[in-house]
Amino acid sequence: MTRFALTVEFDGGPFYGLQRQKDGPSVQQALEEAIHGVTGEEVRVHAAGRTDAGVHALAMRVHADIAKPIAPFRLMGAINAHLRPDPIAVIACEVVDEDWHARFSCTGRSYLYCILNRRAGPTLDRGRVWHVAAELDAAAMHEAAQVLVGSHDFTTFRSVHCQSESAVKTLDVLEVTRDGDEVHVRAEARSFLHHQVRSMVGCLALVGLGRWSAQDMAVALEARDRQALGLNAPPEGLYFVEAIYPTSP
Amino acid sequence: MTRFALTVEFDGGPFYGLQRQKDGPSVQQALEEAIHGVTGEEVRVHAAGRTDAGVHALAMRVHADIAKPIAPFRLMGAINAHLRPDPIAVIACEVVDEDWHARFSCTGRSYLYCILNRRAGPTLDRGRVWHVAAELDAAAMHEAAQVLVGSHDFTTFRSVHCQSESAVKTLDVLEVTRDGDEVHVRAEARSFLHHQVRSMVGCLALVGLGRWSAQDMAVALEARDRQALGLNAPPEGLYFVEAIYPTSP
Repeated sequence: MTRFALTVEFDGGPFYGLQRQKDGPSVQQALEEAIHGVTGEEVRVHAAGRTDAGVHALAMRVHADIAKPIAPFRLMGAINAHLRPDPIAVIACEVVDEDWHARFSCTGRSYLYCILNRRAGPTLDRGRVWHVAAELDAAAMHEAAQVLVGSHDFTTFRSVHCQSESAVKTLDVLEVTRDGDEVHVRAEARSFLHHQVRSMVGCLALVGLGRWSAQDMAVALEARDRQALGLNAPPEGLYFVEAIYPTSP
Repeated sequence: MTRFALTVEFDGGPFYGLQRQKDGPSVQQALEEAIHGVTGEEVRVHAAGRTDAGVHALAMRVHADIAKPIAPFRLMGAINAHLRPDPIAVIACEVVDEDWHARFSCTGRSYLYCILNRRAGPTLDRGRVWHVAAELDAAAMHEAAQVLVGSHDFTTFRSVHCQSESAVKTLDVLEVTRDGDEVHVRAEARSFLHHQVRSMVGCLALVGLGRWSAQDMAVALEARDRQALGLNAPPEGLYFVEAIYPTSP
């Protein structure tokens, strides 16, 4: 058996999420079927993160154990050929040690959330941004975001379906910037709770609209209660950007 | 009558081009029908450029004469409401003088061509880039591009359906840069021939692949013969970026 680490880009629009689902297509199923098509083997794909339905990835990391002798470069091309026409692409592939695990070895994850902030709706970016028509104050959003940085109990910002044992997480970066008509929220942590980024972005949008203050954000955090959440942002603006590992790859 | 100048963004994918066609949907028809929906008037929309089927626009300029008294801000919102679900958005709208003409007053046009240059095909950018799997030498492409800059007879780089009286055009900028996995070609001129940007990009790709030299590009240009064209790049990588006018707007 050889363990391969794959870097995967995908448009989350057509999928019920990364993880296998009984009721619809998933990125995991598409990858496992493509690897089966190449090798004839029943493999299990493990991913750095479990993105929701509609959430995209620029560079998700996954691994799979494969018995068939094959060079990483050939494996990548063959998987991509089998993935068509699904909007999933393996953009890098390498052999890793047996004890390297896409999920458990990962020590950092980063997300980007894109808001299209203008009167007119999206055209070229449809399905890949959250459209907010009223003007957002990105500077106020950035200031309020700093309330969330650090180690906190993020119960307010976690889905009721979250399976994490603890709601305490350490948020390293939560940065809000404006680039023309777009407002970008960048989040970095060792790990995130289910819906955490979307929940934080939803509340930041309330701040940007002037409906919440940074103080309201602090009150929501301290409430440790999902009912205190202001708004959960939709999935289509969210991108899994990068998984970080202490040793290469 | 009031003349309104509109700035329009669109995904060219679902359209048979900007100009009205008998056999399928066009951006012009969608805009004229939306304006009719708002005003009840039969208007004609004039555009700075006539983009082909599948070609996108970030900021196309058009104008239309409207009798109904309406503020530009309201007109923009109402047209956008009528355009749904077409991937066309009016992103700016202003009143202009009667002698301002989106096409004839325009003194500069710029295009961007995006090539996704990696083994794996596009996912999030599907339909919005040209996928070239073999590695392109962007520096060699940029050097060969300079052969085309200046005033030349561009017959080689013009569609047989081009209606322009003269094939002599002055190309001000043709710049090739690499940004990670993408190769960008930026073109600026007062005006372009039909298929000129796509024809230039197709030949530049041959240079990037090492199949053509800058000298081959010069020979093709001097041939003044469509048969000398190496390759016409597909429409989906092309974006109309900006129309320039000597006076505001």
